[in-house]
Amino acid sequence: MPKSLLEELRLKYSPPLPVILSDILKISFDSLDSLPTPSNIAAIFPHVTQDKILRSYLGKEATGSPLRIGVVFSGGQAAGGHNVIAGLFDALVKLHPQSALLGFLDGPGGIVEGKYKELKKEEVDSYRNLGGFDLLGSGRTKIETDEQLKASLDAMQKLKLDGLIVIGGDDSNTNSALLAEYFLKNKCETKVIGVPKTIDGDLTNSCVAISFGFDTATKTYAELIGNLAKDTISDKKYYHFIKLMGRSASHIALECALTTHPNLVFIGEEKKSLQAIINEIVDLIITRAKLGKRFGIIVIPEGLIEFIPEISLLIEEISKKGVEALSNPSQGVWGSLPETIQKQFLLGRDAHGNLNVSAIATDTLLIEMVLKELKKRNFQESFFPVSHFFGYEGRSALPSNFDATYATALGYAAALLVDKGYTGYMCYASSLTDAPSKWMIGGIPITSLMHFEMRKGKNKPVIAKTLVDLKGKPYLTYLGQKEAWKTDDSYLFPGPIQFFGDKELTDTTPRIIDGKRSL
Amino acid sequence: MPKSLLEELRLKYSPPLPVILSDILKISFDSLDSLPTPSNIAAIFPHVTQDKILRSYLGKEATGSPLRIGVVFSGGQAAGGHNVIAGLFDALVKLHPQSALLGFLDGPGGIVEGKYKELKKEEVDSYRNLGGFDLLGSGRTKIETDEQLKASLDAMQKLKLDGLIVIGGDDSNTNSALLAEYFLKNKCETKVIGVPKTIDGDLTNSCVAISFGFDTATKTYAELIGNLAKDTISDKKYYHFIKLMGRSASHIALECALTTHPNLVFIGEEKKSLQAIINEIVDLIITRAKLGKRFGIIVIPEGLIEFIPEISLLIEEISKKGVEALSNPSQGVWGSLPETIQKQFLLGRDAHGNLNVSAIATDTLLIEMVLKELKKRNFQESFFPVSHFFGYEGRSALPSNFDATYATALGYAAALLVDKGYTGYMCYASSLTDAPSKWMIGGIPITSLMHFEMRKGKNKPVIAKTLVDLKGKPYLTYLGQKEAWKTDDSYLFPGPIQFFGDKELTDTTPRIIDGKRSL
Repeated sequence: MPKSLLEELRLKYSPPLPVILSDILKISFDSLDSLPTPSNIAAIFPHVTQDKILRSYLGKEATGSPLRIGVVFSGGQAAGGHNVIAGLFDALVKLHPQSALLGFLDGPGGIVEGKYKELKKEEVDSYRNLGGFDLLGSGRTKIETDEQLKASLDAMQKLKLDGLIVIGGDDSNTNSALLAEYFLKNKCETKVIGVPKTIDGDLTNSCVAISFGFDTATKTYAELIGNLAKDTISDKKYYHFIKLMGRSASHIALECALTTHPNLVFIGEEKKSLQAIINEIVDLIITRAKLGKRFGIIVIPEGLIEFIPEISLLIEEISKKGVEALSNPSQGVWGSLPETIQKQFLLGRDAHGNLNVSAIATDTLLIEMVLKELKKRNFQESFFPVSHFFGYEGRSALPSNFDATYATALGYAAALLVDKGYTGYMCYASSLTDAPSKWMIGGIPITSLMHFEMRKGKNKPVIAKTLVDLKGKPYLTYLGQKEAWKTDDSYLFPGPIQFFGDKELTDTTPRIIDGKRSL
Repeated sequence: MPKSLLEELRLKYSPPLPVILSDILKISFDSLDSLPTPSNIAAIFPHVTQDKILRSYLGKEATGSPLRIGVVFSGGQAAGGHNVIAGLFDALVKLHPQSALLGFLDGPGGIVEGKYKELKKEEVDSYRNLGGFDLLGSGRTKIETDEQLKASLDAMQKLKLDGLIVIGGDDSNTNSALLAEYFLKNKCETKVIGVPKTIDGDLTNSCVAISFGFDTATKTYAELIGNLAKDTISDKKYYHFIKLMGRSASHIALECALTTHPNLVFIGEEKKSLQAIINEIVDLIITRAKLGKRFGIIVIPEGLIEFIPEISLLIEEISKKGVEALSNPSQGVWGSLPETIQKQFLLGRDAHGNLNVSAIATDTLLIEMVLKELKKRNFQESFFPVSHFFGYEGRSALPSNFDATYATALGYAAALLVDKGYTGYMCYASSLTDAPSKWMIGGIPITSLMHFEMRKGKNKPVIAKTLVDLKGKPYLTYLGQKEAWKTDDSYLFPGPIQFFGDKELTDTTPRIIDGKRSL
């Protein structure tokens, strides 16, 4: 694989390690904190359910034995994935030079099909701090049928794996708990540890302040939003409607808004009605036109549409009964949608049963309805909307220093949890807003994060997605500035991610987790 | 205007100056090189026509008198615009501390309407090395009616301007020549100097190797193309169709292709038929599917559509006769276009009479026709196209070191040309691929760059756009690698523009002008 000069330079970057990892042969885990698993979850995870949050401490030095660990990327890319693998690799070598790291290819399907490669130093070194998941590839296969579970267990035993590290989002970590339970039940010694990965920011809990990948993705989107704001404040004629990837929750939109100050941003969790959203945009356009401003920046989270009450009812009814049997209110909503949007509603769902919200052009929907409303209100001035969707660009960007450092620590944590014999845990690094030297690592029982949720009409145990907290500081900060953003054009232009120079510039953490940074 | 930390740091950047500018009181211009103006152009520009290319040299020190200069942004944004103004400002102060710089607001319309502000040090300093044109705003008004010309002359006289600096593309520089001619004819002393600005790369000549803004825009697009390539080689399921801004010529697409190695890039100047383009894409998809690769990266220049012979005939016929009176072949082409695309063809044109190619979704057109052709060829495998358009994001990005440095030198050149009494010239800096210390500055007569061209059915004198040279090194380099790119996935991931650290990383010049850089 050829490398760009920036990649060559990034290969030489050494993410700083937490001090506690400087002598990993001394690390043990323990904690006084417990987090009980809901009883209905514990009932179906009898072997793997734990209630103790694990936290690292320095104990007596113990010479380890060689470990054989498998690792797999599950689901969409997030910057830092290769750092998890580098961290894993480095930790394994330090634990015992004869340890081995096997990478399953193209996602969890690679486990089932027994497709893997052994990762050697030279290859791992050639991916350090680089973007994408291309060292192994990724995939969205969900291991859930008996055949798949059996095939996975067979792979573990055939490859004599002490541990399996699943780098994935909420559903992939749910899958890790399922595998851990199945392995324990069937007397398979392989430990399963999940690594919290997703750009969406919806996989957080008392130990995981944010998943890796969120920082790089939001910084990449914020660069582009800032550039579009700079462009529109220069030529003063376009309204940019910017849709951002990120499934249900609006963390990405909120983070980017705090970084760039758009004129409007919608937070799905506010559950506004479609008409309220349209009115807010049209009111903005009219208010700004009165000030002589016929341009603006509007940020829309990809998942917004799922939170709109009448749309979410519509989605539910379509899923259950089809378009032919809609209730009266839903018929009305359905009829008001442009035909192109109706088509997008009827497209497929992903392997996890999630509505394919990416396929719904929320930006186009809003623009068409705004045009209609402007006409209704007899708006006579110019309005040139331009729509954008940013998603893939941010998932596979070169990891920011934060993501590179954080993901490396997670790789160490995963290796150490396996080494100490834990299974069914999600690894974490804590104190992320402090200097990396001060971070602690540990594990949180995955079952403690689970609840029951309807998926494809079935009640399933899954990890609950973290939504934007409407009482939290990031949202309240936005709320306090929201009115001013509408008209004072206090856009911020963060520019592209920088890797060299001033640490205050290169080593920042996401705003939504950093109480110390000015929002 | 609030600033991001990166902006604060960029404000402190001092673009290196050419050595020849270290004592600007000694600079004079002369040259042995001449470039004759075509006689039919000279006939309508009798006062302003010159045939001498001006080049700077160090002569005797001469104390200048205070200058009053007006400056205007004309047309779309290009990174470096604020540096031109900073360079102008610095040069004026060095020429005489009592000099004044007035900025016309919101484009050439500001000249006609007499809307301007005097630029003081503090304000200029707060825009150094920053993106956008927001210090003054920009606009696309073309000064061509008698009233507009008269109003402009009145503004020059009322404001007692020694010079007017027009920062613009080919049409704006044409306008500069028109103004210079009109001012001379009417005994107005104001000199008019054009500054070559456009991200499109189509405003080049024997003195101007590239316009400012091209470098930053292409680096920003290349960052995003590289990220998408990294993403698709990781999840291996999408074909990304990436349309890039840049009017007719395909310089941007060629530069980005040389920087990122997409599987396919189309160069409009090759003048392929629509069917040839579709076949090339479909052949690629089928060939790659046989190799197990169901993903890819395809780069499409915005202006591609204008070069497709049957489409350009169609455009011509629609402009002249309307859709109702098309020739038989054009009727066939029109009928084959999806309805949404037909609508886009009928949308308005810009103030310069150019077809609004931005409005035509070439990416959607190609995807729809590719789907049809795949069906015809009975292709049974998966094909998931995703379309992207990158344009505005790159125009107003933070200027790269090259653009910041280059634009600053152009600002100095423009001020010095006015100071020495020249008018109707486009300023330039030469030897751009050498260290900035070695650059020379000068001016090229605008009329020498002009020819007649049909615009809105009228034969008009305009600056000829530079197209991609199909015998030039950049194109031939691409041609030599093209076949390999199709299947070997030698994508390059340049990453975001870096401003700090290794000069080899931060201070590069565009590949298409740099014969010394490995392409």
